[in-house]
Amino acid sequence: MVSTTTTAVAENGLVCVFCGSSDGRDPAYGEAAQALGRALAGSRYGLVYGGGGLGLMGRVARAVHESSGRVLGIMPRALTKVEGCGEEVGEVVMVDSMHQRKSLMNDHAVAFIALPGGFGTLEELLEMTTWSQLSIHKKPIIVLNTNGYYSGLKNLIEHTVDAGFVRGAHKGIIQFCDTPEEAVAAIKTYTGPEDRHDLTWK
Amino acid sequence: MVSTTTTAVAENGLVCVFCGSSDGRDPAYGEAAQALGRALAGSRYGLVYGGGGLGLMGRVARAVHESSGRVLGIMPRALTKVEGCGEEVGEVVMVDSMHQRKSLMNDHAVAFIALPGGFGTLEELLEMTTWSQLSIHKKPIIVLNTNGYYSGLKNLIEHTVDAGFVRGAHKGIIQFCDTPEEAVAAIKTYTGPEDRHDLTWK
Ligand SMILES: [Mg+2]
Repeated sequence: MVSTTTTAVAENGLVCVFCGSSDGRDPAYGEAAQALGRALAGSRYGLVYGGGGLGLMGRVARAVHESSGRVLGIMPRALTKVEGCGEEVGEVVMVDSMHQRKSLMNDHAVAFIALPGGFGTLEELLEMTTWSQLSIHKKPIIVLNTNGYYSGLKNLIEHTVDAGFVRGAHKGIIQFCDTPEEAVAAIKTYTGPEDRHDLTWK
Repeated sequence: MVSTTTTAVAENGLVCVFCGSSDGRDPAYGEAAQALGRALAGSRYGLVYGGGGLGLMGRVARAVHESSGRVLGIMPRALTKVEGCGEEVGEVVMVDSMHQRKSLMNDHAVAFIALPGGFGTLEELLEMTTWSQLSIHKKPIIVLNTNGYYSGLKNLIEHTVDAGFVRGAHKGIIQFCDTPEEAVAAIKTYTGPEDRHDLTWK
């Protein structure tokens, strides 16, 4: 495979995509991953992600790469046998822990987009949401709700607000979109809540 | 307040409780937090938690403390103004980051129990679930589903399995319980899935 690393495009920065290392049962998920990759590169964004070559992770990475976008994977050494190594589609940084992976992804990202995934994907999405709530970052967080995959999460968040554990304004930290094109457009138009907890982190 | 730190009980280890720094609208949540604290201490468990003095966090910590159980709080310095400092009900270790807090809570815990909470609580619960799936730990993870607070999460997890992103066996990583007494009893009877990803972490 011809390496395009040196010429790969990311003028508008890297977008962190969280998603499954499986394809899921609905072919729409894989199609959305590929369309998202193309849309990111088309809008001059590169990709930072978990570094896997399998499932939706592999699909979004290959799509960005094939559209001449920069791909940066952050892979915990222990995980390569579960998620597959994505070295062939860009740079891969190997780390020791899940926390190092998430910190580095955040360091490199200008925004976060979640595609369908399992526990790990949900956790990554909710951690970046918590960090936004606490002013650790104020970057766009976008959920691509392909065929309603995340409608249950949307309901769960409504319930945390109704039950008095999340401020109503804070549910706006996550913006739900229906199509990959909308999700990429939302990076620029995103407005998070103004009343985050105003904390100072080192 | 008389310090009971030196004589505080935790023969069976510390249980990590994740929960909100608000009380929530349903008084049942606060009652469950207090009953859980008493049940933990009654079964000779201490508490490790986020270190806050407000909301359900404060309630569970005070209940463990007042029942002569050991309380260890892990508080990020920047967060004290949101969650309140729980120093008066036990030892508090101050840390710099959210990741340090979660790593230390995991280091000290023999099991995890989630009470109602917001984004941070959901994220903590799902991170420990992901870590169990990846064999970073194999400790019990129990959700106290007071008045169905977590039924939406249960549905969401079913959906991740149905959609092909989580193995059916892995949904058993989280055990849902209806009462504080059941949750504490479940620490001993918990059996996680046998087919976790068998990975080696440093
Ligand atoms: Mg996390």
